[in-house]
Amino acid sequence: MEILNEVLSKIERIDYLLAEETQKRLDNLTKPQGSLGRLEELAKKIVEITRNENPSMKNKVIFTMAGDHGVTEEGVSAYPKEVTPQMVYNFIRGGAGINVLARHAGARVVIVDMGVACDLEEHSSLVIKKVSYGTKNMTKGPAMSRNEAIRSIENGVEVFKEEIANGIDIIGTGDMGIGNTTPSSAIVSVITGRNVEEVTGRGTGIDDKTLRSKIAAIKKALKVNKPNPKDGIDILSKVGGFEIGGLTGVMLAAAAHRIPVVIDGFISGAAALIAYTLEPKAKDYMIAAHCSVEQGHKAALVFLGLKPVLDLNLRLGEGTGAALAMSIIEAGTKILNEMATFESAGVSEKSE
Amino acid sequence: MEILNEVLSKIERIDYLLAEETQKRLDNLTKPQGSLGRLEELAKKIVEITRNENPSMKNKVIFTMAGDHGVTEEGVSAYPKEVTPQMVYNFIRGGAGINVLARHAGARVVIVDMGVACDLEEHSSLVIKKVSYGTKNMTKGPAMSRNEAIRSIENGVEVFKEEIANGIDIIGTGDMGIGNTTPSSAIVSVITGRNVEEVTGRGTGIDDKTLRSKIAAIKKALKVNKPNPKDGIDILSKVGGFEIGGLTGVMLAAAAHRIPVVIDGFISGAAALIAYTLEPKAKDYMIAAHCSVEQGHKAALVFLGLKPVLDLNLRLGEGTGAALAMSIIEAGTKILNEMATFESAGVSEKSE
Repeated sequence: MEILNEVLSKIERIDYLLAEETQKRLDNLTKPQGSLGRLEELAKKIVEITRNENPSMKNKVIFTMAGDHGVTEEGVSAYPKEVTPQMVYNFIRGGAGINVLARHAGARVVIVDMGVACDLEEHSSLVIKKVSYGTKNMTKGPAMSRNEAIRSIENGVEVFKEEIANGIDIIGTGDMGIGNTTPSSAIVSVITGRNVEEVTGRGTGIDDKTLRSKIAAIKKALKVNKPNPKDGIDILSKVGGFEIGGLTGVMLAAAAHRIPVVIDGFISGAAALIAYTLEPKAKDYMIAAHCSVEQGHKAALVFLGLKPVLDLNLRLGEGTGAALAMSIIEAGTKILNEMATFESAGVSEKSE
Repeated sequence: MEILNEVLSKIERIDYLLAEETQKRLDNLTKPQGSLGRLEELAKKIVEITRNENPSMKNKVIFTMAGDHGVTEEGVSAYPKEVTPQMVYNFIRGGAGINVLARHAGARVVIVDMGVACDLEEHSSLVIKKVSYGTKNMTKGPAMSRNEAIRSIENGVEVFKEEIANGIDIIGTGDMGIGNTTPSSAIVSVITGRNVEEVTGRGTGIDDKTLRSKIAAIKKALKVNKPNPKDGIDILSKVGGFEIGGLTGVMLAAAAHRIPVVIDGFISGAAALIAYTLEPKAKDYMIAAHCSVEQGHKAALVFLGLKPVLDLNLRLGEGTGAALAMSIIEAGTKILNEMATFESAGVSEKSE
């Protein structure tokens, strides 16, 4: 708990006072005022977070964290759970969606085993921070112990700290874990107070029957475990997942280092909610990458007050939406850093 | 008219049959089917347009075309018309929004004088295709002659043909011209049949009084000139602009060469409507970059049946939205070209 408490104590308010000054600078650039819309908003947000008036987004890092879920025993997913380690190897070889989109955005991917249910082969591109071999079936009791929940968050903090030596200007979050929309729906339901049905979707593409089983499993897990909506660690331990805890840790560590956090999709949204319960100020460091097809994601974003940058009907996870959004955010900072002013370009200003 | 007729005759239907085959290939990649949403749609669209099953988006080109507008005499804009040439020089020096975002997207910008109201200094990065020194005041008669309208389109075709030697895989369209939302609203009103009020917005940021003058000027121009809604050249000559004609030409030429066209904002949308009246098949080569703040833009996109890729509250023009959208489209083609298949990655498929 010491590592986590230290990180939480270091998260400060972002500097809202910098927004006005930055808007003045944006208004001096050769364009009608406000005409670059959300690019300008994003540039301001990055300045508020980093307190750097000319922020660079050179070092873009996506943390893609993997874990398995005991609740898959209940038949909640369209894919067998062997897919979790298979996809981790796919990440290592560079053939997955996140690899393609991270390369496109100029981001590097840090792949982390937070709790895959088998031993993975060691590889220079794989960080092993396994808390356990998958969670337990949450319909029968807690998914993990309270200590494991804390350890999963602290392991996420450690992954971030180990990576920062390589340079980090902005992070994206990503996940891999067959079955992980099930704990995510449970978390979103507990924290936002919405009905399970309202926040449970088709994940990787389940049919109506499987969707009914999934909803039943989540309801049972909530009834059996009674997570405390005010205690993020209790929620994580009872109905969470190791990769979700790891992502929470990465988000909190980034906020403690004044580094912007691009929240990917539904699973990252659930992790963001846990981070918010632990330290509400962490929310101000978050930028929502996109609006996932998964219906619970919207509920999480509304609760956090985050407006997504993109809306491309994505539902893959892995950090794919974060990779695309990072590039838009970087474009916003380049506007601030690279555009000419009316004066430097000799362009006449608006007539009053 | 010969150049234009030749281009129009070369525009074929895109190959819809390739969509199914491409979807099959996308479904074999290591992700749940359809989980990359619009990236998959965009990849399919590019294959249909180019008939290349592994399309490269290496050569991205944005045509930013400038022209002046006689209707500025009516007090329709927030900026003085000297800003048009001043901004062209800003483009040449690389300090404008489009320069920053094109560099970010890895696109090159072709800057074209289609009808700026003064002589611009020659420069290796400026293409001079001036039809005339700005249009005439359309509230008093046609903005240009029918011959000038044809020449503006044909000059656009020539610009495209001259550039293709340098390699073009995809194009974006962009505009610069103080006052040019006024003719664009007129064009959109004529072609979509909507009221002038419905399709007229605040452009670079005009106040209520100027907005009333702008609406009055457009209504007067339509009354005085009575453009024929079925005849794009008539509309262009009576209430159009030289840069709008040039963009129409570029769009038609790209379609004739089976090259995808990324439509930027409102002015490009007006040019796209003109292109559509001349050859409806041209529409299938178009991808809408974003949803502009300018209200008439939405009307144009609805009429053309195009769904924008981005929605970032942009209203700058120049091709800025197109540059950002091109990068998303390129990401879609990379998914198709670079992702591993279930078989090659040894990943188990969905259980049935």
